[in-house]
Amino acid sequence: MEKLFAKDLTLNQVFDFGSITLSEDDIINYAKRYDPLPFHIDKKIADASIFKGLVSSGPQMFNTSYIKEWVPRLGDTVICGLELNNWKFLAPIYANQPITCKVTIIHLKRNEAEKHVVITWNYQFFNPKGKMVQTADVTVMHKL
Amino acid sequence: MEKLFAKDLTLNQVFDFGSITLSEDDIINYAKRYDPLPFHIDKKIADASIFKGLVSSGPQMFNTSYIKEWVPRLGDTVICGLELNNWKFLAPIYANQPITCKVTIIHLKRNEAEKHVVITWNYQFFNPKGKMVQTADVTVMHKL
Repeated sequence: MEKLFAKDLTLNQVFDFGSITLSEDDIINYAKRYDPLPFHIDKKIADASIFKGLVSSGPQMFNTSYIKEWVPRLGDTVICGLELNNWKFLAPIYANQPITCKVTIIHLKRNEAEKHVVITWNYQFFNPKGKMVQTADVTVMHKL
Repeated sequence: MEKLFAKDLTLNQVFDFGSITLSEDDIINYAKRYDPLPFHIDKKIADASIFKGLVSSGPQMFNTSYIKEWVPRLGDTVICGLELNNWKFLAPIYANQPITCKVTIIHLKRNEAEKHVVITWNYQFFNPKGKMVQTADVTVMHKL
Protein backbone atom coordinates (compact mmCIF):
# COMPACT_ATOMS: atom_id res chain seq x y z
CA MET A 1 0.00 0.00 0.00
CA GLU A 2 1.38 3.44 -0.92
CA LYS A 3 2.46 5.51 2.05
CA LEU A 4 1.18 9.08 2.25
CA PHE A 5 3.02 12.17 3.49
CA ALA A 6 1.25 14.61 5.76
CA LYS A 7 2.54 17.60 3.76
CA ASP A 8 0.52 16.41 0.73
CA LEU A 9 -2.81 16.12 2.55
CA THR A 10 -5.53 18.70 1.94
CA LEU A 11 -8.81 19.75 3.55
CA ASN A 12 -11.85 17.87 2.20
CA GLN A 13 -9.66 15.15 0.68
CA VAL A 14 -11.59 11.88 0.52
CA PHE A 15 -10.23 8.34 0.76
CA ASP A 16 -12.03 5.18 -0.28
CA PHE A 17 -11.01 2.49 2.20
CA GLY A 18 -12.90 -0.26 0.40
CA SER A 19 -14.93 -2.88 2.15
CA ILE A 20 -14.48 -5.05 5.24
CA THR A 21 -16.53 -8.11 6.17
CA LEU A 22 -16.38 -9.49 9.72
CA SER A 23 -17.06 -13.19 10.20
CA GLU A 24 -18.85 -14.59 13.26
CA ASP A 25 -15.47 -15.75 14.57
CA ASP A 26 -13.96 -12.29 14.00
CA ILE A 27 -16.77 -10.74 16.02
CA ILE A 28 -16.69 -13.24 18.88
CA ASN A 29 -12.88 -13.29 19.16
CA TYR A 30 -12.62 -9.50 19.20
CA ALA A 31 -15.43 -9.12 21.74
CA LYS A 32 -14.01 -11.75 24.07
CA ARG A 33 -10.83 -9.69 24.33
CA TYR A 34 -12.13 -6.15 24.21
CA ASP A 35 -15.89 -5.93 24.65
CA PRO A 36 -17.15 -9.06 26.41
CA LEU A 37 -20.85 -8.23 26.47
CA PRO A 38 -23.15 -11.27 26.29
CA PHE A 39 -24.72 -10.36 22.92
CA HIS A 40 -21.29 -9.96 21.27
CA ILE A 41 -19.90 -13.34 22.37
CA ASP A 42 -22.89 -15.72 22.54
CA LYS A 43 -24.90 -16.39 19.40
CA LYS A 44 -28.00 -17.57 21.28
CA ILE A 45 -28.11 -14.43 23.40
CA ALA A 46 -27.48 -12.36 20.24
CA ASP A 47 -30.41 -14.02 18.44
CA ALA A 48 -32.69 -13.19 21.39
CA SER A 49 -31.44 -9.57 21.61
CA ILE A 50 -32.94 -6.51 19.91
CA PHE A 51 -30.47 -7.18 17.08
CA LYS A 52 -31.85 -10.68 16.35
CA GLY A 53 -28.37 -11.81 15.37
CA LEU A 54 -24.69 -11.50 16.10
CA VAL A 55 -23.43 -7.90 15.83
CA SER A 56 -19.90 -6.63 16.13
CA SER A 57 -18.63 -4.64 19.07
CA GLY A 58 -19.04 -0.93 18.29
CA PRO A 59 -15.31 -0.17 18.00
CA GLN A 60 -14.42 -3.27 15.96
CA MET A 61 -15.24 -2.00 12.46
CA PHE A 62 -13.51 1.34 12.97
CA ASN A 63 -10.53 -0.40 14.54
CA THR A 64 -10.26 -2.94 11.71
CA SER A 65 -10.39 -0.24 9.07
CA TYR A 66 -7.85 1.86 10.99
CA ILE A 67 -5.38 -1.03 11.17
CA LYS A 68 -5.88 -2.39 7.65
CA GLU A 69 -6.18 0.87 5.73
CA TRP A 70 -5.17 3.93 7.72
CA VAL A 71 -2.05 2.77 9.56
CA PRO A 72 -0.26 1.34 6.48
CA ARG A 73 -0.75 4.66 4.65
CA LEU A 74 -0.28 7.11 7.52
CA GLY A 75 1.13 5.35 10.60
CA ASP A 76 4.69 6.60 10.03
CA THR A 77 3.50 10.23 10.03
CA VAL A 78 1.82 10.15 13.47
CA ILE A 79 3.24 12.22 16.32
CA CYS A 80 0.31 11.50 18.65
CA GLY A 81 -3.44 10.98 18.76
CA LEU A 82 -5.33 13.90 20.28
CA GLU A 83 -9.00 13.09 20.52
CA LEU A 84 -11.98 11.15 19.23
CA ASN A 85 -15.46 12.63 18.90
CA ASN A 86 -18.86 11.92 17.41
CA TRP A 87 -18.24 8.18 17.35
CA LYS A 88 -21.82 7.13 16.69
CA PHE A 89 -23.03 3.55 16.52
CA LEU A 90 -25.98 4.30 14.25
CA ALA A 91 -27.04 0.81 13.25
CA PRO A 92 -25.84 -2.72 13.96
CA ILE A 93 -23.03 -4.28 11.91
CA TYR A 94 -23.79 -7.97 11.44
CA ALA A 95 -21.49 -10.88 10.69
CA ASN A 96 -20.77 -11.54 7.00
CA GLN A 97 -22.02 -8.10 5.97
CA PRO A 98 -19.63 -6.13 3.70
CA ILE A 99 -19.21 -2.64 5.13
CA THR A 100 -17.65 0.11 3.03
CA CYS A 101 -15.58 2.87 4.56
CA LYS A 102 -15.07 6.43 3.35
CA VAL A 103 -12.67 8.77 5.15
CA THR A 104 -12.65 12.56 4.72
CA ILE A 105 -10.27 15.20 6.08
CA ILE A 106 -12.71 17.60 7.75
CA HIS A 107 -10.23 19.79 9.61
CA LEU A 108 -6.58 20.55 8.87
CA LYS A 109 -4.32 23.04 10.65
CA ARG A 110 -0.69 23.31 9.63
CA ASN A 111 1.96 24.64 11.99
CA GLU A 112 5.04 25.19 9.82
CA ALA A 113 7.15 26.47 12.73
CA GLU A 114 6.51 23.34 14.77
CA LYS A 115 6.61 21.13 11.67
CA HIS A 116 3.30 19.46 12.36
CA VAL A 117 -0.24 19.40 11.09
CA VAL A 118 -3.34 18.58 13.14
CA ILE A 119 -5.92 16.70 11.10
CA THR A 120 -9.44 15.50 11.90
CA TRP A 121 -10.32 12.35 9.99
CA ASN A 122 -14.04 11.68 9.58
CA TYR A 123 -14.78 7.99 9.10
CA GLN A 124 -18.12 6.89 7.62
CA PHE A 125 -19.22 3.28 7.31
CA PHE A 126 -22.07 2.05 5.12
CA ASN A 127 -23.90 -1.27 4.92
CA PRO A 128 -24.79 -2.95 1.60
CA LYS A 129 -28.07 -0.98 1.45
CA GLY A 130 -26.10 2.30 1.58
CA LYS A 131 -27.26 3.11 5.11
CA MET A 132 -24.64 4.80 7.30
CA VAL A 133 -24.03 2.45 10.22
CA GLN A 134 -21.19 4.21 12.00
CA THR A 135 -19.22 7.44 11.97
CA ALA A 136 -16.29 8.83 13.98
CA ASP A 137 -14.03 11.90 14.00
CA VAL A 138 -10.42 11.17 14.96
CA THR A 139 -7.99 14.04 15.52
CA VAL A 140 -4.29 13.29 15.07
CA MET A 141 -1.07 15.32 15.08
CA HIS A 142 1.15 14.40 12.11
CA LYS A 143 4.78 15.23 11.26
CA LEU A 144 5.12 17.69 8.38
CA MET B 1 -17.55 -7.99 41.86
CA GLU B 2 -21.08 -6.87 42.76
CA LYS B 3 -23.35 -6.46 39.75
CA LEU B 4 -25.33 -3.24 39.50
CA PHE B 5 -28.86 -2.73 38.21
CA ALA B 6 -29.64 0.13 35.88
CA LYS B 7 -32.79 1.04 37.85
CA ASP B 8 -30.63 1.91 40.87
CA LEU B 9 -28.29 4.29 39.04
CA THR B 10 -28.59 8.04 39.59
CA LEU B 11 -27.35 11.21 37.93
CA ASN B 12 -23.98 12.42 39.29
CA GLN B 13 -23.25 9.04 40.86
CA VAL B 14 -19.48 8.49 41.08
CA PHE B 15 -17.59 5.20 40.90
CA ASP B 16 -14.01 4.64 41.98
CA PHE B 17 -12.55 2.12 39.55
CA GLY B 18 -9.24 1.90 41.40
CA SER B 19 -5.89 1.79 39.66
CA ILE B 20 -4.47 0.02 36.61
CA THR B 21 -0.80 -0.32 35.71
CA LEU B 22 0.22 -1.37 32.20
CA SER B 23 3.53 -3.16 31.76
CA GLU B 24 5.76 -2.70 28.71
CA ASP B 25 4.56 -6.07 27.44
CA ASP B 26 0.91 -5.06 27.97
CA ILE B 27 1.48 -1.93 25.89
CA ILE B 28 3.40 -3.61 23.08
CA ASN B 29 1.05 -6.61 22.83
CA TYR B 30 -2.07 -4.43 22.72
CA ALA B 31 -0.59 -2.06 20.17
CA LYS B 32 0.60 -4.86 17.88
CA ARG B 33 -3.00 -6.03 17.62
CA TYR B 34 -4.95 -2.79 17.67
CA ASP B 35 -2.75 0.28 17.20
CA PRO B 36 0.50 -0.74 15.48
CA LEU B 37 2.17 2.67 15.38
CA PRO B 38 5.97 2.54 15.60
CA PHE B 39 6.23 4.38 18.94
CA HIS B 40 3.77 1.98 20.62
CA ILE B 41 5.52 -1.23 19.58
CA ASP B 42 9.24 -0.42 19.41
CA LYS B 43 11.02 0.78 22.55
CA LYS B 44 13.90 2.43 20.66
CA ILE B 45 11.54 4.46 18.48
CA ALA B 46 9.50 5.31 21.61
CA ASP B 47 12.63 6.58 23.41
CA ALA B 48 13.44 8.82 20.43
CA SER B 49 9.83 10.13 20.18
CA ILE B 50 8.38 13.24 21.82
CA PHE B 51 7.33 10.94 24.67
CA LYS B 52 10.91 9.83 25.45
CA GLY B 53 9.62 6.42 26.47
CA LEU B 54 7.05 3.76 25.75
CA VAL B 55 3.46 5.03 25.99
CA SER B 56 0.25 3.09 25.71
CA SER B 57 -2.09 3.30 22.73
CA GLY B 58 -4.71 5.95 23.47
CA PRO B 59 -7.65 3.53 23.76
CA GLN B 60 -5.83 0.93 25.85
CA MET B 61 -6.31 2.43 29.34
CA PHE B 62 -10.00 3.15 28.78
CA ASN B 63 -10.51 -0.27 27.27
CA THR B 64 -8.72 -2.03 30.13
CA SER B 65 -10.76 -0.19 32.73
CA TYR B 66 -13.97 -0.89 30.80
CA ILE B 67 -13.28 -4.62 30.68
CA LYS B 68 -11.93 -5.03 34.22
CA GLU B 69 -14.27 -2.71 36.09
CA TRP B 70 -17.29 -1.61 34.05
CA VAL B 71 -18.33 -4.79 32.25
CA PRO B 72 -18.37 -7.03 35.36
CA ARG B 73 -20.65 -4.54 37.16
CA LEU B 74 -22.83 -3.42 34.24
CA GLY B 75 -22.32 -5.66 31.21
CA ASP B 76 -25.54 -7.64 31.78
CA THR B 77 -27.62 -4.43 31.70
CA VAL B 78 -26.47 -3.23 28.25
CA ILE B 79 -28.96 -3.08 25.38
CA CYS B 80 -26.53 -1.29 23.04
CA GLY B 81 -23.78 1.30 22.92
CA LEU B 82 -24.84 4.59 21.33
CA GLU B 83 -21.90 6.92 21.09
CA LEU B 84 -18.54 8.04 22.37
CA ASN B 85 -17.51 11.69 22.66
CA ASN B 86 -14.82 13.90 24.12
CA TRP B 87 -12.32 11.07 24.25
CA LYS B 88 -9.25 13.21 24.90
CA PHE B 89 -5.71 11.90 25.11
CA LEU B 90 -4.45 14.70 27.35
CA ALA B 91 -1.07 13.34 28.40
CA PRO B 92 0.92 10.18 27.77
CA ILE B 93 0.35 7.05 29.86
CA TYR B 94 3.69 5.33 30.39
CA ALA B 95 4.50 1.73 31.19
CA ASN B 96 4.55 0.81 34.91
CA GLN B 97 2.65 3.97 35.87
CA PRO B 98 -0.39 3.38 38.11
CA ILE B 99 -3.37 5.22 36.64
CA THR B 100 -6.51 5.76 38.71
CA CYS B 101 -9.94 5.87 37.15
CA LYS B 102 -13.04 7.74 38.30
CA VAL B 103 -16.35 7.30 36.49
CA THR B 104 -19.32 9.67 36.85
CA ILE B 105 -22.86 9.46 35.48
CA ILE B 106 -23.18 12.85 33.75
CA HIS B 107 -26.44 12.25 31.87
CA LEU B 108 -29.34 9.92 32.63
CA LYS B 109 -32.67 9.70 30.85
CA ARG B 110 -35.17 7.05 31.87
CA ASN B 111 -37.84 5.79 29.52
CA GLU B 112 -40.23 3.79 31.70
CA ALA B 113 -42.53 2.90 28.78
CA GLU B 114 -39.66 1.40 26.78
CA LYS B 115 -38.04 -0.02 29.94
CA HIS B 116 -34.65 1.47 29.22
CA VAL B 117 -32.40 4.22 30.48
CA VAL B 118 -29.79 6.09 28.42
CA ILE B 119 -26.73 6.95 30.47
CA THR B 120 -23.58 8.91 29.66
CA TRP B 121 -20.59 7.65 31.60
CA ASN B 122 -17.74 10.12 32.00
CA TYR B 123 -14.40 8.40 32.54
CA GLN B 124 -11.47 10.31 34.00
CA PHE B 125 -7.97 8.91 34.36
CA PHE B 126 -5.22 10.40 36.55
CA ASN B 127 -1.50 9.73 36.78
CA PRO B 128 0.35 9.43 40.14
CA LYS B 129 0.87 13.21 40.24
CA GLY B 130 -2.90 13.75 40.06
CA LYS B 131 -2.80 15.09 36.50
CA MET B 132 -5.74 14.08 34.33
CA VAL B 133 -4.27 12.09 31.44
CA GLN B 134 -7.41 10.96 29.65
CA THR B 135 -11.16 11.44 29.64
CA ALA B 136 -14.07 10.03 27.62
CA ASP B 137 -17.88 10.19 27.58
CA VAL B 138 -19.57 6.91 26.67
CA THR B 139 -23.33 6.81 26.07
CA VAL B 140 -25.07 3.47 26.57
CA MET B 141 -28.68 2.24 26.54
CA HIS B 142 -29.37 -0.02 29.54
CA LYS B 143 -32.29 -2.30 30.41
CA LEU B 144 -34.44 -0.97 33.24
